Amino acid sequence: MTTIHPVILCGGSGTRLWPRSRADRPKPFLRLLDEKTLFEATLARCADPGMFAPPIVVAGAKHRRHVEEQGGDVDGLVLIVEPQGRNTAPAIALAAARLPADAVMMVCPSDHHIADTAAFRNAARQAATLAAADWLVSFGIAPTHPETGYGYIERGAAIAGGFEIARFVEKPDLDTARDFLSEGGFDWNGGIFAFRAGAFLNELAVHRPAMARAVERAVAEGEAQGEGVFCPSETSWSEIEGESVDYAVMENTARAAVVPVAMGWSDIGNWQALRDASERDAAGNVASENAELVDCVKVMAVSDGPRISCIGLSDIVVIVDGGEVLVTTASGAQRVGALKGTKEQ
Amino acid sequence: MTTIHPVILCGGSGTRLWPRSRADRPKPFLRLLDEKTLFEATLARCADPGMFAPPIVVAGAKHRRHVEEQGGDVDGLVLIVEPQGRNTAPAIALAAARLPADAVMMVCPSDHHIADTAAFRNAARQAATLAAADWLVSFGIAPTHPETGYGYIERGAAIAGGFEIARFVEKPDLDTARDFLSEGGFDWNGGIFAFRAGAFLNELAVHRPAMARAVERAVAEGEAQGEGVFCPSETSWSEIEGESVDYAVMENTARAAVVPVAMGWSDIGNWQALRDASERDAAGNVASENAELVDCVKVMAVSDGPRISCIGLSDIVVIVDGGEVLVTTASGAQRVGALKGTKEQ
Repeated sequence: MTTIHPVILCGGSGTRLWPRSRADRPKPFLRLLDEKTLFEATLARCADPGMFAPPIVVAGAKHRRHVEEQGGDVDGLVLIVEPQGRNTAPAIALAAARLPADAVMMVCPSDHHIADTAAFRNAARQAATLAAADWLVSFGIAPTHPETGYGYIERGAAIAGGFEIARFVEKPDLDTARDFLSEGGFDWNGGIFAFRAGAFLNELAVHRPAMARAVERAVAEGEAQGEGVFCPSETSWSEIEGESVDYAVMENTARAAVVPVAMGWSDIGNWQALRDASERDAAGNVASENAELVDCVKVMAVSDGPRISCIGLSDIVVIVDGGEVLVTTASGAQRVGALKGTKEQ
Repeated sequence: MTTIHPVILCGGSGTRLWPRSRADRPKPFLRLLDEKTLFEATLARCADPGMFAPPIVVAGAKHRRHVEEQGGDVDGLVLIVEPQGRNTAPAIALAAARLPADAVMMVCPSDHHIADTAAFRNAARQAATLAAADWLVSFGIAPTHPETGYGYIERGAAIAGGFEIARFVEKPDLDTARDFLSEGGFDWNGGIFAFRAGAFLNELAVHRPAMARAVERAVAEGEAQGEGVFCPSETSWSEIEGESVDYAVMENTARAAVVPVAMGWSDIGNWQALRDASERDAAGNVASENAELVDCVKVMAVSDGPRISCIGLSDIVVIVDGGEVLVTTASGAQRVGALKGTKEQ
């Protein structure tokens, strides 16, 4: 079968899990759920040599240290260092430009949680087959609730191993999200993609020719730094206008396909999502060893040191980290970005 | 009019406002409500020389430092140092034994909040008049809600300036407390008393002769330490069996009277009570300068250093103090004593 080249994107500003995540301690590199960081778990998911080539990691300069620490023992790992963040389309184009045109690449965010690795790999196989046939494939995450924070993908005509994409839908309002769930045929756009490197670059050249040329130049003028590290030219890179792969390519190509998959996916987009993805006790609580919970339900209480003592709480998240104390309702966790603390990093 | 000798009791174990109050930082000596500690406010309430004699403070040895720090500039203050805590009856007897028999003393806990000083002083005048006529007088705090955590006093026959006490009622259940409120004629027993020193000692000799003798001995064998400090004999004191003034005297004497008073009283018995006694913003919140509240109502968030950030909370107390983090519902604040942290002091 087709060998898949994992392309792991490490971006993000690190405010949604504040105060645990910070500008200098971004989410992919934190031990949030178990002994592995989300980045390490992403590497492990793609670590089957019968199926995957060594990974390409695209990361910002300030994350290089974390990638080298946590990915240092992965055979053949290639790190591409982005001089600045330019969103996903240029980052993916960078990796594509460093691969043979016929290589099938699979783009994986580094900060998502996937509970069911087998389901992930099955979907990856299907997606790779479609990608080899020059489809630009998005993983369609089976929606579990009418989420208004994600984009949706509507399935079109069935093709072997998936569906054509009828349309992409921006973050919907709640009524629309509910309709999608009851109608069926809609999946979450989880930011996981598969395509032939050459097919992606061809589509980019058609729909975003300036970006395609700038990336090509940044790669041509770039330099390898030691074994397995590539740095594109900062001058050329800085001229690129940042854009998501959805806007730049997926919504424009006539060859977009979706592979629906239910794999226990979460983007761990806020503390509520982390609580829900964590192992919980009978009362639905998640607590670090230094937290005492009395008469609490659905509480997440995690501290990096000081003891947390909770009484009578329901559906509350308490995070103590780096001298900051966050207390929020689970639903309020989405608004962490509004706090002063997140802006002072 | 009769000069009143304030007798200020500093006892208590300091767990109910944990983690702010600790064994070595008891509640009377903390700045909880404003610039004055509860102890300082108690002194200030009795600081009118036209009405009050200099105060006698009865405090444990481990609180001596706090009394001297906070009461050091009060003219004529006398400190009586209890070798060990023996509850209120022996503490009051100590002060009574150091006063002339005809002195009218007024016993005030040092850790209560009284918003209306004028109402307090009016009641003190009434109580002093009754005490001079050999009544043993309890302040009857006007109840504001069916509290089950306090004892109640039922008014009997009216006398000039107050009422005879029909009976004392132990902490009632909620239905009984509700009945008391709807019936009327019941007040909270707030632990504020007035009596002639000699009258108190006479009643103690009748109802608790062993205690009366032991206190007398402890005083006779005691010694003055410098100006204004008296230490009873530790040997004799240690033989005393501790008992509350209610049990030892007030419930037994035939001369118990009550002076009802509404004076914005709170025993600041837990964090909820402190929140309710504090100045609050339009949303009912109380926050220290290092706390940020987003979409919160009726929240108390107070930190001794680390920033607290709250989102979407309602009726929650967040206290950060001395490396401990407490998060409780307002109603859960009563159960702070159940926490491990309060037992490790």
